[in-house]
Amino acid sequence: MDQDAALERSMRRALELAAHGPSTGPNPRVGCVLLAANGEVLAEGWHRGAGTAHAEVDALGKLPGGAARGATAVVTLEPCNHTGRTGPCALALIDAGIARVVYAVSDPGRESSGGAERLRAHGIDVLGGFLEAEVSAFLADWLTAARLGRPFVTLKWASSLDGRAAAADGTSRWITGPQARLDVHRRRAAADAIIVGTGTALADDPALTARDAAGELLPSQPIPVVIGSRRIPADAALRSHPRPPLFFPTDDLTAVLANLHGRGIRHAFIEGGPRLASAFVAAGLVDEYLVYLAPTLLGGGRLALGEIGVSGIDEQRLLTIEHCGRLGEDLLVVARPR
Amino acid sequence: MDQDAALERSMRRALELAAHGPSTGPNPRVGCVLLAANGEVLAEGWHRGAGTAHAEVDALGKLPGGAARGATAVVTLEPCNHTGRTGPCALALIDAGIARVVYAVSDPGRESSGGAERLRAHGIDVLGGFLEAEVSAFLADWLTAARLGRPFVTLKWASSLDGRAAAADGTSRWITGPQARLDVHRRRAAADAIIVGTGTALADDPALTARDAAGELLPSQPIPVVIGSRRIPADAALRSHPRPPLFFPTDDLTAVLANLHGRGIRHAFIEGGPRLASAFVAAGLVDEYLVYLAPTLLGGGRLALGEIGVSGIDEQRLLTIEHCGRLGEDLLVVARPR
Ligand SMILES: NC(=O)c1ccc[n+]([C@@H]2O[C@H](COP(=O)([O-])OP(=O)(O)OC[C@H]3O[C@@H](n4cnc5c(N)ncnc54)[C@H](OP(=O)(O)O)[C@@H]3O)[C@@H](O)[C@H]2O)c1
Ligand SMILES: NC(=O)c1ccc[n+]([C@@H]2O[C@H](COP(=O)([O-])OP(=O)(O)OC[C@H]3O[C@@H](n4cnc5c(N)ncnc54)[C@H](OP(=O)(O)O)[C@@H]3O)[C@@H](O)[C@H]2O)c1
Repeated sequence: MDQDAALERSMRRALELAAHGPSTGPNPRVGCVLLAANGEVLAEGWHRGAGTAHAEVDALGKLPGGAARGATAVVTLEPCNHTGRTGPCALALIDAGIARVVYAVSDPGRESSGGAERLRAHGIDVLGGFLEAEVSAFLADWLTAARLGRPFVTLKWASSLDGRAAAADGTSRWITGPQARLDVHRRRAAADAIIVGTGTALADDPALTARDAAGELLPSQPIPVVIGSRRIPADAALRSHPRPPLFFPTDDLTAVLANLHGRGIRHAFIEGGPRLASAFVAAGLVDEYLVYLAPTLLGGGRLALGEIGVSGIDEQRLLTIEHCGRLGEDLLVVARPR
Repeated sequence: MDQDAALERSMRRALELAAHGPSTGPNPRVGCVLLAANGEVLAEGWHRGAGTAHAEVDALGKLPGGAARGATAVVTLEPCNHTGRTGPCALALIDAGIARVVYAVSDPGRESSGGAERLRAHGIDVLGGFLEAEVSAFLADWLTAARLGRPFVTLKWASSLDGRAAAADGTSRWITGPQARLDVHRRRAAADAIIVGTGTALADDPALTARDAAGELLPSQPIPVVIGSRRIPADAALRSHPRPPLFFPTDDLTAVLANLHGRGIRHAFIEGGPRLASAFVAAGLVDEYLVYLAPTLLGGGRLALGEIGVSGIDEQRLLTIEHCGRLGEDLLVVARPR
């Protein structure tokens, strides 16, 4: 009973530590707490992103040699079994003489999984799935990307209450207000890549940067990505983006996402326009919807979403609304496929 | 100071009494409190709908003859000066020997106004505009109808998050869930008339009744109204409505509304379809929008709203969102023209 309470407290602490890590980049955010046999916290660690020590190794590194012998490692993700830029964590835990490992979520990676097995083979007591639901929710985006071998895809659009992205003549700046636009920039900054179609790149000449209210660049910038065969002029604003843009002269969205995944991109933010957005929806490639609804009516034919391959109501794309709230005068609806 | 507090308390009480009245019908909901010189409440009254005593007369009727002499009448609406099915309230107050009248909102009616003037001419101390904002908000629909000489118009539609009323093949039952549909019925029951275009009448054969969750008729039923020149079959469901339906074989919406106003209809509830709804929006005849958004995407061309006469973003129909909340899985957005 008492021991369970200590483990639960430690796993929650490990989750807190995990959240110190960067939300962008290819690696998951992981936290680790090392406990002595009497329940005392020996050391804490977390992962600071690709190329740096994993959470377990970070925690072990804070102790003198031998001090972790017989200890329990409480870690949010199954210790990896993979030699990448750093050695396998399973090995580091074995070498340190850890007696017990408690983790929440299994490693879904093809190369990195098998850590639990390796630990058990060395006589270490291993408990997996502890507080799994909570930690899974925290890692949802990364887990989706790992499971599907493509980035987690967020599709954002802004429309009038009647679903239009622009007035009949194409004018649309600005449908939504400053608070909604700021929210978009904040969410852009939390993604690894920001994607538009050539239609939007040519029509709007967007900078595709993540900026604050004063227009200054935020510290984290997603890689700008343009999909489509039309050429983007040499003086396009997105060519001055702090990160070199990627161009994919294709309409094969699955191939683009696989390519982005190969580059370490785990979260892609699709900003439109309507044709590209509809193609992503039709292909079933959207994991999260951000719909900014402005308190206005436009009518006409400039729809935020066009054809998505639904012919009868039985084929509708059912969603679950995760959040609905006001942003200034606008509404933000966050939804996921059911 | 003390007297002001007593007046404020009495006006709030009069507003509570007013709310006992029926929300449908041609007459406003009015409440009245009679106060003795020492601030004691002598009697209370409210209006129970067309053909029954007005609030002031209702309150006076609860006192023996002469008992209201020298009293103060606190009433939510300016006492009327009009002989309709009942005599003018101003006269009743004068006859009863009332010394002071405090009211919140002036009577906007062409025939019924002038009550305050008549009271003053008889030496009665009159104070108008007391707690006016609060009472105006309560009477908003009725005041709009009185000001414009047409019913207050609520336009309702249900759509997917991308603004579609149906899938490409026309199937739509049910986009929204049971809680949203129940909410529609409850709001139908609070209106005087429910309006559809011939397109909807022919395509859906709707009953146009207000029903509860069990499908039973609610106590109050709006008059069904069909606009358009196409003939509705003799066996159409709406012909079995508890109230005889009205047919307007025209496309002149202003004329229809004027006719309905003449019949005592103060609140009309437009249920579509898209063509009729768009025509009402384009004509600037909508006072309140109820948009039920289902958590689904449909794409395609069956839009909840079509052409509304907006060509550029400068002509957009700006709204103010009054309420946004969840109804089961759906969202309800209530908005008014800005
Ligand atoms: N309200 C909003 O949230 C919002 C957001 C962004 C943009 N917009 C507006 O949307 C308009 C541009 O939208 P748009 O629909 O014309 O262009 P778009 O969606 O940005 O780009 C369409 C282009 O994407 C390329 N593409 C690549 N793969 C595709 C696929 N699988 N399916 C379809 N297209 C694919 C094609 O390029 P190629 O033809 O070059 O091969 C296609 O022509 C602009 O007016 C912009 O202002 C509004
Ligand atoms: N999702 C929803 O909330 C919702 C609600 C209702 C209906 N619906 C769907 O909508 C479809 C029917 O919609 P609809 O657009 O075809 O028909 P509609 O709007 O119900 O009716 C259109 C008809 O209204 C008449 N009309 C009268 N005055 C008009 C004016 N000023 N402007 C335009 N029309 C005027 C015309 O009739 P005449 O041609 O006879 O003269 C016109 O053809 C059905 O499939 C129904 O299921 C959806």
